[in-house]
Amino acid sequence: MHDRVTVADAVIGWSESEQAVAREAFEQAYVRAIEQLIATIRARAGTLHSAETIWEFHDFLSIERHTIEGRFAFQFEGILFVFASLVKDGLLQLNELAGLDSEKLAKITAMSRF
Amino acid sequence: MHDRVTVADAVIGWSESEQAVAREAFEQAYVRAIEQLIATIRARAGTLHSAETIWEFHDFLSIERHTIEGRFAFQFEGILFVFASLVKDGLLQLNELAGLDSEKLAKITAMSRF
Repeated sequence: MHDRVTVADAVIGWSESEQAVAREAFEQAYVRAIEQLIATIRARAGTLHSAETIWEFHDFLSIERHTIEGRFAFQFEGILFVFASLVKDGLLQLNELAGLDSEKLAKITAMSRF
Repeated sequence: MHDRVTVADAVIGWSESEQAVAREAFEQAYVRAIEQLIATIRARAGTLHSAETIWEFHDFLSIERHTIEGRFAFQFEGILFVFASLVKDGLLQLNELAGLDSEKLAKITAMSRF
């Protein structure tokens, strides 16, 4: 049987407390991304005036949905890159990752500047 | 060469003035459908509060786009059915089809009641 403990134990190089920090930071960034998208939808909805602008709005939503669903499928593989991109995009602050070991934080910090 | 006159002449059973009435009524219904959709989008945008409600909103837009693009691809084949459905949905008034011959109007009127 695969329970939560078994899965957690399988994450090499992440202590349990680091995993908790990562999940909470990830959830926080997700909430912010959704809040930003709702604000953008409301602003754009106010500017619609033709079929073409509706279809462009629909295309925008399709891309955002695809991007968000891909970006926020939580998994530890590659998560340092995801965190770096979230920091770069302002969806996460570095101090919200406090609790990760210094090597992980240094990698995220460095990559977030690219 | 295919010019507009040649194409128009090929529409059997529709006089030129009937064709003009049909195109104008069709365009009017299209404008109304788009206006209704914009109003619905604005109302729904105000109720968004989570990822799930955004994705449902996106699904709704996908269906509306598909429906409208299919419904308003103007062609004389089957247009009596399209007019009947537009009347039924309140996007067109029967008096806006004045100028069509009585047989066409009778068919549209009868079908719009189904």
